[in-house]
Amino acid sequence: MSKHPKRIVGGVNAPKGFSTATAACGIKRSSPKSGPLRNDLCLVVSDIPAAAAGVFTTNLVKAAPVLLSRRHLDNARASAVLLNSGNANACTGEPGEQAAEETAIVTALALDIPLDEVLVCSTGRIGVQLPIGKMIPGIEHAAWSLQNTPAAATEAAKSIMTSDTVPKQSAYEVKIGNKVFRIGGLAKGAGMISPNMATMLCVITTDAAVPPAFLQKALGEVISQTFNCISVDGDCSTNDTVLLLANGTSAVAIKSAGEKKIFSEALHMVCADLARAIVADGEGTSRVIALTVIGAKSNADAHKIARSVANSQLVKSAWAGGDPNWGRILCAAGYAGVDFDPGKVEIIYDGMSAAKNGMECQDAKGEAALRKIAAKKEFAVTVDLHSGKGEARLLTTDLTEDYVRLNLTEFSL
Amino acid sequence: MSKHPKRIVGGVNAPKGFSTATAACGIKRSSPKSGPLRNDLCLVVSDIPAAAAGVFTTNLVKAAPVLLSRRHLDNARASAVLLNSGNANACTGEPGEQAAEETAIVTALALDIPLDEVLVCSTGRIGVQLPIGKMIPGIEHAAWSLQNTPAAATEAAKSIMTSDTVPKQSAYEVKIGNKVFRIGGLAKGAGMISPNMATMLCVITTDAAVPPAFLQKALGEVISQTFNCISVDGDCSTNDTVLLLANGTSAVAIKSAGEKKIFSEALHMVCADLARAIVADGEGTSRVIALTVIGAKSNADAHKIARSVANSQLVKSAWAGGDPNWGRILCAAGYAGVDFDPGKVEIIYDGMSAAKNGMECQDAKGEAALRKIAAKKEFAVTVDLHSGKGEARLLTTDLTEDYVRLNLTEFSL
Repeated sequence: MSKHPKRIVGGVNAPKGFSTATAACGIKRSSPKSGPLRNDLCLVVSDIPAAAAGVFTTNLVKAAPVLLSRRHLDNARASAVLLNSGNANACTGEPGEQAAEETAIVTALALDIPLDEVLVCSTGRIGVQLPIGKMIPGIEHAAWSLQNTPAAATEAAKSIMTSDTVPKQSAYEVKIGNKVFRIGGLAKGAGMISPNMATMLCVITTDAAVPPAFLQKALGEVISQTFNCISVDGDCSTNDTVLLLANGTSAVAIKSAGEKKIFSEALHMVCADLARAIVADGEGTSRVIALTVIGAKSNADAHKIARSVANSQLVKSAWAGGDPNWGRILCAAGYAGVDFDPGKVEIIYDGMSAAKNGMECQDAKGEAALRKIAAKKEFAVTVDLHSGKGEARLLTTDLTEDYVRLNLTEFSL
Repeated sequence: MSKHPKRIVGGVNAPKGFSTATAACGIKRSSPKSGPLRNDLCLVVSDIPAAAAGVFTTNLVKAAPVLLSRRHLDNARASAVLLNSGNANACTGEPGEQAAEETAIVTALALDIPLDEVLVCSTGRIGVQLPIGKMIPGIEHAAWSLQNTPAAATEAAKSIMTSDTVPKQSAYEVKIGNKVFRIGGLAKGAGMISPNMATMLCVITTDAAVPPAFLQKALGEVISQTFNCISVDGDCSTNDTVLLLANGTSAVAIKSAGEKKIFSEALHMVCADLARAIVADGEGTSRVIALTVIGAKSNADAHKIARSVANSQLVKSAWAGGDPNWGRILCAAGYAGVDFDPGKVEIIYDGMSAAKNGMECQDAKGEAALRKIAAKKEFAVTVDLHSGKGEARLLTTDLTEDYVRLNLTEFSL
């Protein structure tokens, strides 16, 4: 019998046979400028070749590391992931692709593994060539200092932060019968976060043995319910990547339908934790809003409306001000390009209707109660179109002055 | 022979046979709260019934005044436009439609004109019932105090301001042969400004005699090139309305193809002036950016990319910071849902290439020059896809901390 996954300390090196290391290469600027170099590179390494799956940005403009990792995943196998912050290696053309390849070669040589078992991820400024000269000694240093302690996992999660304010990781232990496997992950988010993957990097590891085809399928399904249901600013980046490595080092093999269900559930929990952490740490975010659209003619319609509402600068600004402004929500729904009857719409804050039949439905006392809800750090907004069974969910944020301030120029890389 | 339209003082009452008046009804809050009431209602009246045309919001959620004015325009004739600020009469259901009708009835009675010659426009807070009791004496007062001075036109333009910081009007005199006609307009903009019409109201008047069918056609065409090519925040409102009244009081009749061309040109100049004034006065705006996308496979593709770039919070925040961040522009183009080759893209600031072939193309000195351009109050950004002949133009703005501050809650109405 299986038990509910149990949260454990650590992240990507919590599963057996995975270790991590970081290096400070000077890709990311020091802060203050005269201060010490910050960690800006990390390695996640499996002791033995792992089954691997990946999901990448849908942006037409794909960064060099995305192109390379996608190619290296053709064999559905990987042993190491190299991640760097401070430079996205996006919009860097042929030289950028060569640089990504070169970092993979250096990693493969340092770890003595085949080149196509190396995956790479970059995040940071777009359009600047990767400082490969600075990175080579960093990669070699990291390859020599791999560890599997929780502290090392946290350092790895920290090293890929850009405008993130906290490292993001999650790990669970799962029992199947009397055997145990572990699954853990790290992620970075902060800006350029939108459905269809975000400026986010995420590496998930597990010591379960999972058939590659199922690994890819499970990852795709879980992402559609987690990372693809979050939105900070509606900007879908050039570098979004989620990688999943399963090295089978535990005694658990995922074969039966029941085992697959248990594995997917644990994978969902890790991804949901990380997606939630990304939204809560969205650039300048002061509130997290669980937006649900129900009663639409189709799920696709519901999703369009949810995106339109979650991407509206006016709606998000009102949320920042603690204003339960249902009129702006209905207005944003109205330009989503979806047919519905505005006269049937109900808008609900934490179970309390703010509008019914497309109109205000509260007196002054009710409005005061709605304001209390909208002033919270977290609340739920439901838009019920009362016109069908289609529904969609989106975890989103407000839009604060801090968001703009943080993005007036490239964040301190 | 015709001469180029000549700019003249005033706005909607510059054409002969039009007059305006305002009233302070208390729909808009006083500022400071204990201060005197501010003008929040105005009438634009033609001495004789005028041919009339209108273009309205494409938002599925249409305010009550939009529904009423559209219906009253069935006869393509109007004598008066009643406008109010402080309350949008949107999302107000049946009672809202009755209130709009009631204000039109009071206007018709006060001016002794048929009900269906009255058009109404509202702007302000969504979801609150119109304070009809306060408005009736204001309408009656205004109907008794109509004037055709430039000062009265300016007062009218001021009375419909919400978060606008300056009144917006424009007027031209046009010679055809040795005859003269005039055309003038007023507008309000500020927030919820996006292609497909904005939270904007605009009334244009002319003393030329124009056949109604051509009037509607010319208005539609000019709007597609002016008001529908601006974007402040990507929010398309519930109340957008542009009305055009032609009362024929001048000796000029627009009949021949040549005369139609001259009329359309003058109409274009008024609309372009007002559209530009709306963008320049966008909420919290510190810069105006003339965005052009060229070299796309089709005009539709170019337009999608222009919107994606102009609505990107990251791109707009960078512009606010004076950062010529071409990477964010290319990234936003990449998620526009349009097929193009990122490796061919050129991005140009005021004639200076920031990126070619999808990559950086300037050294440190060139970058400094680009920063100087992006620090200006106005500059042009061209995205050349080098893949076809499709093109699109959009006048847009940056996204500042002030925008968010202004929208933390409903602006002082």
